[in-house]
Amino acid sequence: MFYEVKNGHPLPHNPIYACVVPRPIGWISSIDEMGTHNLAPYSFFNAVSVDPPMIMFCPCGFHTEGGEKDSGVNAINRGEFVYSMATYEMKDAMNLSSISAPRDQDEFEIAGIEKADSILIDPPRVKSSPISFECKTWKIIDLPRAKNGSKNMIVIGSVVGVHIDDSCLVDGKIDLLKIRPISRLGYKDYAVIDEIFSMQRPD
Amino acid sequence: MFYEVKNGHPLPHNPIYACVVPRPIGWISSIDEMGTHNLAPYSFFNAVSVDPPMIMFCPCGFHTEGGEKDSGVNAINRGEFVYSMATYEMKDAMNLSSISAPRDQDEFEIAGIEKADSILIDPPRVKSSPISFECKTWKIIDLPRAKNGSKNMIVIGSVVGVHIDDSCLVDGKIDLLKIRPISRLGYKDYAVIDEIFSMQRPD
Repeated sequence: MFYEVKNGHPLPHNPIYACVVPRPIGWISSIDEMGTHNLAPYSFFNAVSVDPPMIMFCPCGFHTEGGEKDSGVNAINRGEFVYSMATYEMKDAMNLSSISAPRDQDEFEIAGIEKADSILIDPPRVKSSPISFECKTWKIIDLPRAKNGSKNMIVIGSVVGVHIDDSCLVDGKIDLLKIRPISRLGYKDYAVIDEIFSMQRPD
Repeated sequence: MFYEVKNGHPLPHNPIYACVVPRPIGWISSIDEMGTHNLAPYSFFNAVSVDPPMIMFCPCGFHTEGGEKDSGVNAINRGEFVYSMATYEMKDAMNLSSISAPRDQDEFEIAGIEKADSILIDPPRVKSSPISFECKTWKIIDLPRAKNGSKNMIVIGSVVGVHIDDSCLVDGKIDLLKIRPISRLGYKDYAVIDEIFSMQRPD
């Protein structure tokens, strides 16, 4: 089938999420202007550059209390955020941290997730996550608004510090089969990295 | 371990690629100013908005003939590109299309990949890919340059048309286990989606 986007999609569920997969999960922690810690998963998330290392995430849609989502607002106002990797072992805590909580509530506490201090910035990281990036907000790209008026945006951050759990390093490489990262598919679906294959570049 | 990015990374291989995983593969086709078709895979790629549907990819690094990579230049100059999904069945062709070919060579031909016409734009799509998006370039975000002087950038596109192979639709949903999408990990590693689990949102 083919459809023109300007006419809306013809399926019972919006297929776009299932068409760009698997999406890495950026578990983003930040601090609001009152000092409350915030934690939420984003799958419109990826690296955008390796040298210098930079990542992006997209806090789209409304907060249930109105206005933009906390992670985006906090990344703008405080200029800092942390990415932690979500693993299969932490999948339920990750899911719980996606709850639409009031602004003054800390999703680390709601989901029972232990914090660890960052070294170069203020927002804490997820202590049991094997990989975390400390990031400074580099630029916000405002995207066209959704039909319901909610804001879409890309938050781009410079990675200033990298945490890697030593137990995941084998011969100087990160062993993802020890980490078992999870990823987002369409609908309510996820996948876990449990098998790896390799290919040599053709040149 | 922890390292400050400004001091460089202390590992034998740059760990950044393995820290943001699994990355979806945007197999991007475009047309250059001479009319040559171009096809290349990018894993700094994702959706950035669902309403309206928008995606991004990052053509970082130098072309072997100097200057920026074809897909980025073409997306700027022609204002159009196509994303096709890479599947396990097409993994070798996908890998072959990543070759550093001269500008006047068509990676569809090099990799033996059949083209299908797009409907709303000029660049062709990968015929055997079950999912393709026809995109118009919306904005280019220039990122800080790499130490070797090469340009980093984000190409953001508006999705104007969506192709979905009917044989992958089950009850109006895309069945990814029929598609078996592949994704990029660190180093020379990839993963295939062969199993799915589901979680209900907490609210």
